[in-house]
Amino acid sequence: MHSPVGNVTGFVLLMLVQIVFLVLFWVFVRYDKEALPVGAGETEAVEHVSKYPQFQDIQVMIFIGFGFLMTFLRKYGYSATGYTLFLGALVIQWAVLIKGFIHMEGGKISLSLENIIDADIAAAVPLISMGALLGRTTPIQLLFMALFEVALFAANEYVALDILSICDVGGSITVHAFGAYFGLAVSMILRPSKDQNEAGKYEGANYTSDIFAMIGTLFLWVYWPSFNSVLAAGSGPERAILNTYLSLAAATVTTFVLSAIVSHENKLDMVHVQNSTLAGGVAVGTVCNLLIGAHGAVLIGIIAGTVSVLGYRFLSPLMASKLRIHDTCGVHNLHGMPALISAIASAIVAALVTKEKYKSEMTTIFPAMVTTEEIEVQQTQNSSTIILGGYNRTASAQAGYQLFGIAMTVIVAIVGGILTGIVLKYTNVRKLNKEEHHQDEVFWEVPDHKEE
Amino acid sequence: MHSPVGNVTGFVLLMLVQIVFLVLFWVFVRYDKEALPVGAGETEAVEHVSKYPQFQDIQVMIFIGFGFLMTFLRKYGYSATGYTLFLGALVIQWAVLIKGFIHMEGGKISLSLENIIDADIAAAVPLISMGALLGRTTPIQLLFMALFEVALFAANEYVALDILSICDVGGSITVHAFGAYFGLAVSMILRPSKDQNEAGKYEGANYTSDIFAMIGTLFLWVYWPSFNSVLAAGSGPERAILNTYLSLAAATVTTFVLSAIVSHENKLDMVHVQNSTLAGGVAVGTVCNLLIGAHGAVLIGIIAGTVSVLGYRFLSPLMASKLRIHDTCGVHNLHGMPALISAIASAIVAALVTKEKYKSEMTTIFPAMVTTEEIEVQQTQNSSTIILGGYNRTASAQAGYQLFGIAMTVIVAIVGGILTGIVLKYTNVRKLNKEEHHQDEVFWEVPDHKEE
Repeated sequence: MHSPVGNVTGFVLLMLVQIVFLVLFWVFVRYDKEALPVGAGETEAVEHVSKYPQFQDIQVMIFIGFGFLMTFLRKYGYSATGYTLFLGALVIQWAVLIKGFIHMEGGKISLSLENIIDADIAAAVPLISMGALLGRTTPIQLLFMALFEVALFAANEYVALDILSICDVGGSITVHAFGAYFGLAVSMILRPSKDQNEAGKYEGANYTSDIFAMIGTLFLWVYWPSFNSVLAAGSGPERAILNTYLSLAAATVTTFVLSAIVSHENKLDMVHVQNSTLAGGVAVGTVCNLLIGAHGAVLIGIIAGTVSVLGYRFLSPLMASKLRIHDTCGVHNLHGMPALISAIASAIVAALVTKEKYKSEMTTIFPAMVTTEEIEVQQTQNSSTIILGGYNRTASAQAGYQLFGIAMTVIVAIVGGILTGIVLKYTNVRKLNKEEHHQDEVFWEVPDHKEE
Repeated sequence: MHSPVGNVTGFVLLMLVQIVFLVLFWVFVRYDKEALPVGAGETEAVEHVSKYPQFQDIQVMIFIGFGFLMTFLRKYGYSATGYTLFLGALVIQWAVLIKGFIHMEGGKISLSLENIIDADIAAAVPLISMGALLGRTTPIQLLFMALFEVALFAANEYVALDILSICDVGGSITVHAFGAYFGLAVSMILRPSKDQNEAGKYEGANYTSDIFAMIGTLFLWVYWPSFNSVLAAGSGPERAILNTYLSLAAATVTTFVLSAIVSHENKLDMVHVQNSTLAGGVAVGTVCNLLIGAHGAVLIGIIAGTVSVLGYRFLSPLMASKLRIHDTCGVHNLHGMPALISAIASAIVAALVTKEKYKSEMTTIFPAMVTTEEIEVQQTQNSSTIILGGYNRTASAQAGYQLFGIAMTVIVAIVGGILTGIVLKYTNVRKLNKEEHHQDEVFWEVPDHKEE
């Protein structure tokens, strides 16, 4: 009889992964020039760490925000916080390497603050997917999923941003939509047999676990402007901050209204408050650095809060019963649909944009709408990230590219998720039985609950 | 029979408020020049987002600090965190608009990071008032209260800072005293009938809820220097940080001492630890950017900790039994009295100030003590916020203005609170019965607690 890859074998495998990472760092990664001692006569520049506060905010979002948001399951808090930490720690190393290989120069990966900001953002991707699967996988299944998912995410992001030249400063398309639809596709493959379709025995909150989850919600809410603004250039960061702030506020007020209106006995539902309040941050992500106006941000927030609450109330139960796609945290309502809203908004804004409106920032906001000659003028001043010249897109062409970008991302994510699900389901990896779902005890030492 | 404005009607009203906000943003709000793309030939300035890290700390204070501090009630944690988020999200939009209307130029409100810092600070005001009323109002009552209160706050702040030219960099007078006395006045009007004066059945903590509350306390404690320093100018920010830090430390040590001395069986009381430790941050607020010296900050902290603990132990029970003013969180001891201490301290410091001591910073610290000519010299360099020239106050006159500022603020807050209380009590708004107090279940879906 063959033994499936169980606890110990799985963790030994994980140690091997860490050692492979060690070797790859050894061979390929070098400090960037800005992180090296300055030579004699050179003055020291400190601007390169000016994004450190935003980086730290994103750290809080990834490790505290995501971790605690998922503690709402009453018997799964060790796993929620623990696997977030474990998966995050794994993925940030992998993301430095894999994104490094894509942008490698002279056979070496250069390492600076910028790379670890990118790595933190990449960590959000498998954590979003984990939200869809929460309580139904082993940590080793998550490990395999995360390694493949982040590689595919990096490739898709490269095509979307560097080749297709779409705008997506807050990552709603490349991060949120990708993570959500990938996770939902894995979930679809891992779905239980038809006779087992009822909710898990332990799939629910208690009073304390719901308040723990609010720690996650509030840190994500508070720091979301940092997530959306950190990669913006020119005057973009301030607009990204302002728009994200207003969109979150409007989504939050809307969430309370809709929650009371659609819920049982017109009472507020903590699931909505924990999640839909954040939908404004996702829905404004792609367009937050554009000139959408305060009213544009508020409008997007209202739409996002509405769609998200309605999704939790009506669409998720339908997906579970009809398609048997289980979504423990409702990532489709927090990340998936709000990301689609953001992509559509970006197409609308791009279609309406005039070069006049953005003037000198066209190269950072809509690089593909600037002619090669214009780019060259800019590049004499500083080496920008624009790698493909020759574009001179019309506004409506850019809008088309935005829509193509989201469509491609969703398709790549779904296909990748299906393949991953098949590997996790049909290979020799330890799986969980229905009775083992949504409880820490299978993989954690849990103290005896019979205290006075 | 007329139905009071109940759950659904109230929330529909709230949606209307959000839509009115959308329209107002559309018509009146425009990005500030600094948040717009730079024109050709202009060089880019990035200093305008240099306060972003402090802004983020204040976000944590408002949404996590206030929210979790109020989770000490054992059956009111959803409401504490949820209503803080809801009220905060509502008020930050309203504050941008209402403060924008006051400072409008050319019929438009300009939006920049500065405005959302102000908006976050304004959000503290109704949240402080909510602390006095915690567990005894509906969310819709809070909505009405917050809209009126923030408008009145903005007007009072304008008079105090821009017309009377008092100093109050940490907002102890304009924010803390206003929020506390407004809330206490509302509480006085909403007081229960005489035969119902005992504490609510659920008005108390349990072991877990007390530890949740410490999350709030500790984040407020840690980030308070950001709150007090963010609006300081010149060399003020660093002094504000240092003085706030020391005052909090001294108040905390004093709190532990006093708590053990005055409490039952000489044991420490979590109420004191959760609240009085923070009184040092309030009490130093108005003077934290002045040259009060490290010893001045420590002295203020000692006084604040003492007054606050004694207030919780002796004054609050007296106010509840004699005046029947109920104060769930004890905001009078954390915000009210420490703010009075801060105002008195500011009068003392102002009376002792010499221009020699402050030299070139007089225009930002005590603008009214500088002659018109001196101001004009400063204004040629940068357009400052000084709007009324012609002052040349003596030190003792400035001290008098400080005292007038706090007196006016307390009176405006109390009158405003009484009017608000009357509206909340005697109009057709849904009210809570005594049996509905201090429990989430009236407005929230709460999980069944009889799980394994």
